Amino acid sequence: MKPTAKEIIKDLELVRAGSPLVHNITNYVVMNSTANALLAVGASPVMAHAVEEVEDMVAIASALVINIGTLSEPWVAAMAKAAAAAGRKGIPIVYDPVGVGATPYRTRVFRGLLEIAPAAVMRGNASEIMAVDNDGAATRGVDSSAATESAMESARRLAVRWRCTVCVSGATDIIVDAEHAAAINNGHPLMPKVTGLGCTATALCGAFAAVEPDFFRATVAAMAVMGIAGEIAGEKSPGPGSLQVHFLDALYNLDGKEIEQRLKIS
Amino acid sequence: MKPTAKEIIKDLELVRAGSPLVHNITNYVVMNSTANALLAVGASPVMAHAVEEVEDMVAIASALVINIGTLSEPWVAAMAKAAAAAGRKGIPIVYDPVGVGATPYRTRVFRGLLEIAPAAVMRGNASEIMAVDNDGAATRGVDSSAATESAMESARRLAVRWRCTVCVSGATDIIVDAEHAAAINNGHPLMPKVTGLGCTATALCGAFAAVEPDFFRATVAAMAVMGIAGEIAGEKSPGPGSLQVHFLDALYNLDGKEIEQRLKIS
Amino acid sequence: MKPTAKEIIKDLELVRAGSPLVHNITNYVVMNSTANALLAVGASPVMAHAVEEVEDMVAIASALVINIGTLSEPWVAAMAKAAAAAGRKGIPIVYDPVGVGATPYRTRVFRGLLEIAPAAVMRGNASEIMAVDNDGAATRGVDSSAATESAMESARRLAVRWRCTVCVSGATDIIVDAEHAAAINNGHPLMPKVTGLGCTATALCGAFAAVEPDFFRATVAAMAVMGIAGEIAGEKSPGPGSLQVHFLDALYNLDGKEIEQRLKIS
Repeated sequence: MKPTAKEIIKDLELVRAGSPLVHNITNYVVMNSTANALLAVGASPVMAHAVEEVEDMVAIASALVINIGTLSEPWVAAMAKAAAAAGRKGIPIVYDPVGVGATPYRTRVFRGLLEIAPAAVMRGNASEIMAVDNDGAATRGVDSSAATESAMESARRLAVRWRCTVCVSGATDIIVDAEHAAAINNGHPLMPKVTGLGCTATALCGAFAAVEPDFFRATVAAMAVMGIAGEIAGEKSPGPGSLQVHFLDALYNLDGKEIEQRLKIS
Repeated sequence: MKPTAKEIIKDLELVRAGSPLVHNITNYVVMNSTANALLAVGASPVMAHAVEEVEDMVAIASALVINIGTLSEPWVAAMAKAAAAAGRKGIPIVYDPVGVGATPYRTRVFRGLLEIAPAAVMRGNASEIMAVDNDGAATRGVDSSAATESAMESARRLAVRWRCTVCVSGATDIIVDAEHAAAINNGHPLMPKVTGLGCTATALCGAFAAVEPDFFRATVAAMAVMGIAGEIAGEKSPGPGSLQVHFLDALYNLDGKEIEQRLKIS
Repeated sequence: MKPTAKEIIKDLELVRAGSPLVHNITNYVVMNSTANALLAVGASPVMAHAVEEVEDMVAIASALVINIGTLSEPWVAAMAKAAAAAGRKGIPIVYDPVGVGATPYRTRVFRGLLEIAPAAVMRGNASEIMAVDNDGAATRGVDSSAATESAMESARRLAVRWRCTVCVSGATDIIVDAEHAAAINNGHPLMPKVTGLGCTATALCGAFAAVEPDFFRATVAAMAVMGIAGEIAGEKSPGPGSLQVHFLDALYNLDGKEIEQRLKIS
């Protein structure tokens, strides 16, 4: 059974009503846009990365989002510490393997994090998910277009191995766990022309996983909300500058009727 | 006597005419939006955080803004060095205690900075100001809504203890020093849905304190300009994405007539 | 011979067709806006600054952009390592000497980088270029207005000494190498009111240098595209907030006809 529009709407209402605190250790490029997207969807973002405080921040958070987009050693240490704390506390961890496969360092760091604390959700593009799974896969920087099919196989393997939900995002977003699979066909072709919308999707997964304990459903809901808001924004936007503005407006104003009318899930 | 609209307009003209260099050591989330707001209001922003150069940057600046939103040890060291240099040089320091109370580390670091160099101005939300004052106060991340009244008591105590101006921002912005108090009722309900507008307010306090030696008046002027620009922007904005765009436009174009007509000070 | 509109259009088409991977080690303030501008023009941005991975990232990149806007020691070490790797690999390095002259540290670091690996292109404002050339020149933070003439002399001297293309950007953008010179008179007065458009120009130089081996021509093309997109955006923008949005839209949609009609080169 795929999550229905009504279930997605209900989860969005839970985010807005609960305003869950989402602790992000993320990359410099997207900190601002991620925080704005979390606010627009109704969550409370906090960014903190000092080893001196990440455990205390996890202690008051409802989800932890770790994104390795602009990593360096002090950040890796903080990510590890925060992930361990989140694992002990039992709040969901959402991982974004930005650029895994592009350099050996990223691949090594990301796999190390998975060993420290299990993911609730992992979201990446096709080549990133393949590279997490398989050393043979090559990533060209952070936006690439590896074959979706092998990515789906990788996603399924990772979901089984790590007992988590894996999302391969792209023109079609694929969400799998060990037993379920769904595809979302919302979104807009302009979206890849805005930096960090993938990172935003990951952060939204954090907001939904904070309120919806079925992480497969939470991820589907987050990706559907993301795609529909992007679609509404894209239809009004002559270019990527406008898209960013309209995306936040659409996310903030998204209502149940729009979700019911536009949702393309299979 | 509260500052009048004419005095606020005069201070805004001083910022625009003098284009004071405001040295910011601030958090990653808001660096871009803060720099843009400082440019829009007419100031010259510079961001620099290396211990190797903060003293040289303070030497050419007219105000120093320190914001601990995404702190870590190397940044704390640079903040301390810059604050000490600003204290020796006698330029105003504006502090933003982002998230104080959320983790012990933030509280400790922030109080340490106050010991190093006195604030001209301190601006935070209600729970941050209470947490700077009082270990019992709890902050939930960076946006919270502790009772305004206890926040006012904390603000007054901090103003007396540290001989500075304290601003508690929120739906109503309260500004106090040891002898004065004012409340500004401008702004727009969408503003808290944009990340870092509090940090922007702090940076504007830096721009005004750089040109107006009466720091209570400078803070009132900065918060009034902030609130009025936010109000103009909010009225045109269907959501938080648009608000950011219109806010910078409004700040850039703000004229004396708008300030006179809209100012709600008490 | 100055590059013609047709040559500039052809280079823009090369960027869009090749989508070159541009590795940026840049400042926190502009990472997001730089990445968005590179995407809008058709390139593929990647930001990575860990010493552990910069060489691997250079290995898959077609150009390296180094911008010292918010430098600190770990970043300087990564810049040096990346620059050396780019030099060995033979991909173009584009340097942005943000704030050189404002503090001795910046000046020293920037000159050190030039010694490590030669620039293909260097772009700064007048006072930065003068300060790179000459210890007597003073910079006031990052936006200043030193006399254009002495800046041109400095640019010429640097171009000869380092065998590179130097761009002094301002109301008129000057581009020189040891044998050529061109001036571009596109752009809009609102542009300096948006933070980091200079850094964006530098990043665009990286995108064009990645596909056009004549670096003088690549720099002229990048600055022309930048200026024309800024001009189109400025004409629609009531303030700097709107300008950012329209700039990305204009860059994304820029067509050959607009370039032919608007180009002001001499």
